[in-house]
Amino acid sequence: MLETIPFSLNVYDANCPTRHILNVIADKWATLIIGLLEAQPIRFAALQKRIGGISQKMLTQTLRSLERDGLVQRTVYAEVPPRVEYALTPLGQTLCEPINAIIKWSEVNIEAVTAAQQRYDQRL
Amino acid sequence: MLETIPFSLNVYDANCPTRHILNVIADKWATLIIGLLEAQPIRFAALQKRIGGISQKMLTQTLRSLERDGLVQRTVYAEVPPRVEYALTPLGQTLCEPINAIIKWSEVNIEAVTAAQQRYDQRL
Repeated sequence: MLETIPFSLNVYDANCPTRHILNVIADKWATLIIGLLEAQPIRFAALQKRIGGISQKMLTQTLRSLERDGLVQRTVYAEVPPRVEYALTPLGQTLCEPINAIIKWSEVNIEAVTAAQQRYDQRL
Repeated sequence: MLETIPFSLNVYDANCPTRHILNVIADKWATLIIGLLEAQPIRFAALQKRIGGISQKMLTQTLRSLERDGLVQRTVYAEVPPRVEYALTPLGQTLCEPINAIIKWSEVNIEAVTAAQQRYDQRL
């Protein structure tokens, strides 16, 4: 099963499987979804409501990529109407720490980044 | 200058300045660029050569976003032909740890993710 993994991994090689993973996890929507799912399983509509600016199509695509990579588990409950919930898998939980570090960085450095943006825009 | 920053930051709000930062840094190309620049300043052509699959347009756009946000410094040396180098700013250096954690995660978990992908694809 693991024969397809090259001996030498290199995320800078567009054909390396690690690059595929980076494509999925180094992404703003995946970051926001994983950040929400850390606390508890959430239904599709609730995810869409809480993530400002995400389209239904983008949410569907991102959840599917995260599910395929084994980070998110999709569970359908046989209710009327059916309830579909998304939750982090144990593998997905291990991504919370690096993902939260990225979100935290955005918050901690907002003043420095905003000041840099203003300097850049005034220069143009 | 900081009047534009709302009192309560929320990366889940599409209009919060922290979301803009996330758009820039939670991105595969930004991750790969920052990962390379950590070691040393690099010229545009060398970046393009080392980052498999990046187009000239995408590299230009990503570098400009990183420069605007104060993460990357672009320096033009008055040589013939002019030499243009990109380097991390001190602010950009502080992103290396979370960025490297994301890249490292891709490498450490490649087997688990590949196995999950194969299970998912066989299910379809």
